Amino acid sequence: MIALETGQDWQPIVKEFEAIVGKNGVVRKREELLVYECDGLTSYRERPAVVVLPRTTEDVAAIVKVCDRYRVPFVARGSGTGLSGGALPIENCVLIVTALMRQILSVDLENQRVVVQPGVINSWVTQAVSGAGFYYAPDPSSQIICSVGGNVAENSGGVHCLKYGVTTNHVLGLKVVLPDGAIVDLGGDLPEMPGYDLTGVFVGSEGTLGIATEITLKILKTPESIRVLLADFTSIEAAGATVSDIISAGIIPGGMEMMDNMSINAVEDVVKTNCYPRDAEAILLIEVDGLEVEAEVNAQRVAAICRQNGARNVAIATDLEDRLTLWKGRKAAFAAMGKMSPDYYVQDGVIPRTSLEYVLREIEALGAKHGYKVANVFHAGDGNLHPLILYNNAEPGALEKVEELGGEILKLCVKVGGSISGEHGIGADKRCYMPEMFTSADLETMQWVRQAFDPHGIANPTKIFPTPRTCGEAARSAPSQAIAGVDRF
Amino acid sequence: MIALETGQDWQPIVKEFEAIVGKNGVVRKREELLVYECDGLTSYRERPAVVVLPRTTEDVAAIVKVCDRYRVPFVARGSGTGLSGGALPIENCVLIVTALMRQILSVDLENQRVVVQPGVINSWVTQAVSGAGFYYAPDPSSQIICSVGGNVAENSGGVHCLKYGVTTNHVLGLKVVLPDGAIVDLGGDLPEMPGYDLTGVFVGSEGTLGIATEITLKILKTPESIRVLLADFTSIEAAGATVSDIISAGIIPGGMEMMDNMSINAVEDVVKTNCYPRDAEAILLIEVDGLEVEAEVNAQRVAAICRQNGARNVAIATDLEDRLTLWKGRKAAFAAMGKMSPDYYVQDGVIPRTSLEYVLREIEALGAKHGYKVANVFHAGDGNLHPLILYNNAEPGALEKVEELGGEILKLCVKVGGSISGEHGIGADKRCYMPEMFTSADLETMQWVRQAFDPHGIANPTKIFPTPRTCGEAARSAPSQAIAGVDRF
Repeated sequence: MIALETGQDWQPIVKEFEAIVGKNGVVRKREELLVYECDGLTSYRERPAVVVLPRTTEDVAAIVKVCDRYRVPFVARGSGTGLSGGALPIENCVLIVTALMRQILSVDLENQRVVVQPGVINSWVTQAVSGAGFYYAPDPSSQIICSVGGNVAENSGGVHCLKYGVTTNHVLGLKVVLPDGAIVDLGGDLPEMPGYDLTGVFVGSEGTLGIATEITLKILKTPESIRVLLADFTSIEAAGATVSDIISAGIIPGGMEMMDNMSINAVEDVVKTNCYPRDAEAILLIEVDGLEVEAEVNAQRVAAICRQNGARNVAIATDLEDRLTLWKGRKAAFAAMGKMSPDYYVQDGVIPRTSLEYVLREIEALGAKHGYKVANVFHAGDGNLHPLILYNNAEPGALEKVEELGGEILKLCVKVGGSISGEHGIGADKRCYMPEMFTSADLETMQWVRQAFDPHGIANPTKIFPTPRTCGEAARSAPSQAIAGVDRF
Repeated sequence: MIALETGQDWQPIVKEFEAIVGKNGVVRKREELLVYECDGLTSYRERPAVVVLPRTTEDVAAIVKVCDRYRVPFVARGSGTGLSGGALPIENCVLIVTALMRQILSVDLENQRVVVQPGVINSWVTQAVSGAGFYYAPDPSSQIICSVGGNVAENSGGVHCLKYGVTTNHVLGLKVVLPDGAIVDLGGDLPEMPGYDLTGVFVGSEGTLGIATEITLKILKTPESIRVLLADFTSIEAAGATVSDIISAGIIPGGMEMMDNMSINAVEDVVKTNCYPRDAEAILLIEVDGLEVEAEVNAQRVAAICRQNGARNVAIATDLEDRLTLWKGRKAAFAAMGKMSPDYYVQDGVIPRTSLEYVLREIEALGAKHGYKVANVFHAGDGNLHPLILYNNAEPGALEKVEELGGEILKLCVKVGGSISGEHGIGADKRCYMPEMFTSADLETMQWVRQAFDPHGIANPTKIFPTPRTCGEAARSAPSQAIAGVDRF
């Protein structure tokens, strides 16, 4: 008998779930629920009341209808790799896990579309079509474990989003279970559909508008040729100026990543690529792609711009093996950082490219003020920073101090005209910073849309929007919760 | 004294408008209202009760607040070139015309952004930045007269949208006056913003969610080099197969347009380009752009694919003058058609590229069945058809028959997995076909969002969504209007 703090009797709800997905599809033992307590944002934890594992759209609709009838909140979860707590359970919630929804439903090479269930792993999409010369562009670092459903919820990015855009640019249509259990189709098979673009609203809505159960993705032709350049600089400024100059020259690299000295040394300590110079203040990894002639010409143009900005060395890799060697350190950077420091806190902010030098200097100063080292590994072309704050969670109060530093970095991003999130979402982690970017009227408008989808507020409530409960700062400036009490209709 | 059929006393409303924009900013004489009776869809006409011409966001907000207070509907209008009746006045409405909102508010070349008022003409944006090597990509045929605000409302496309996307892909942020007069910011300066993507919902919402008063556009670097190819074919099938083969080869042309024999001859009769062969069953105009080497290699690849598919001749133009000559006939095609026939009705549908040959044959058969000639000039690369039905409006009942034929063409598009609109919007013209593409649950979901923005239904009501009032067919299958009576909250 499961009876939780609120007095909710879960027995009849669990029985209904078992009737839908079978006893094996329902998890309710305390020890088994443990693994669902958090997602990639491990500093927040909350145990769900029950976990349900559907296999089909109809399963999800039936489960959600039960939640709607009992007015219990539900949270959707893919692989649980999200870094902002979007899939963090809330108290007394039903956690709907898509781990058994892993079918690739259709592949249409002629029209460059693939339809998948939400539990399908990101890299499987490319694997399914690469033999025919296609790929799926959005490539979060976690792509070998993260789910497409989670990517849709968080509007995930990746290294190649500079040229090809984030998840929302690659989702054509969605079959969605709304918070009342209705099944609707948003978008469709075509790039543009008549009526309101609700696909765009849904992508990045972090599970607050319903659950996507079928996702139609756009796939791209694999480029004929790729070059990867590694350029090293004796100053962050020179590397930053190089990034701006490349874009100003009209070149849009497939990816353009920067790593600072601390990251370079962490990577070389652990991964030993032997190609990242330990004495460089910054390196740039730049990938150019397209026709063979295009990749070659652009590689030479990029190399020239790097040298004009004082790069000491510029290596150009053409063969797949050489390219993977150059990328290896970047891909392993977060893991390497984990070996350098007992704990690290990764932040995700965006700035205009033109503020790169200023912001990196300020981040260093903020780190020094708080007594923490901050390493920088990031998508330089998009201005999407990932400052990694190194700390030791064993020190009392360290996490709070680190979160404060992280918050100051986000405010710095907003100050220069940037954003509090580039590709990790808002989730539970950053909702208190939303008023930094939006007026109360802006946030209210979003909340009206939320209510249009979810009038009873049972779909992943407490995420995205600031609430006075959890965030003292937001309580002053965020009237968005007031909308819950406003009768607009 | 203006007192209309409904008994609405307009005098106090007009006085309030005059207080906001001055007497010169308010039009209420019958003869002056005449020009506002229709937009580009000239077969529908309705006189507005009053026309107001604001200059600023604050003017618009004040005007809309008056409308909200008196509960009178308002319709926004840019240049009035829309082809689906999106800016068609409705009975006893206030028409808010953005013709005096024509300031380019800021140009930020470094971050590739331009902020404009909604009345700014599409081509002015490119003119403002072309000297510095930039351009604004969406290029509707009407780009020298249509407004950016209208482009946002209708999510306009154009020749170059195959490679670069339609308006929604180029709008970063919007300042919007909501239907209650509140001013909010949707999106912002960055490609991705946290929270719901309401910019995406607003673009293409045809004035039903509010009025955009400041629009932040993304501008692109002008490509280094451009080639335009003209290939002529002895069959539509061969031209269609060429289109598919070019895309399958991984080439994304800047534009890929097809014209059939009737269009070719109409153009040569009127424009006399002397380069479109009159005996060709179809021609393709294909533009490739990028680096000089890339444009050259792709032009040769495209030419080879055209020849493999039986093209009789392939001309390649590199110089600006030669390129403009090749484009001249295409750009003048609609006007030429107007000289060939007393009237023409232009339809706008989308099909998967792979259905091109089948659909063009079916359109010809449908035309023959109804006794009308149908010319085809269209964006072949996107599968975005523009069948032009030639008719004489002086014949009694002709328009009704032509509209019926147009409707059958749209249903054909839907049948093969396409869409009832590519770039002209739904407006007043096509709302009755929405149930062909969407279930009632899909349409209800859109209507909930509409209500979230516009609870009193005063922003361009009767557009987009099917209503039993105007469309017998839709009345059977479209329960979407029922939502107006549903209390969701």
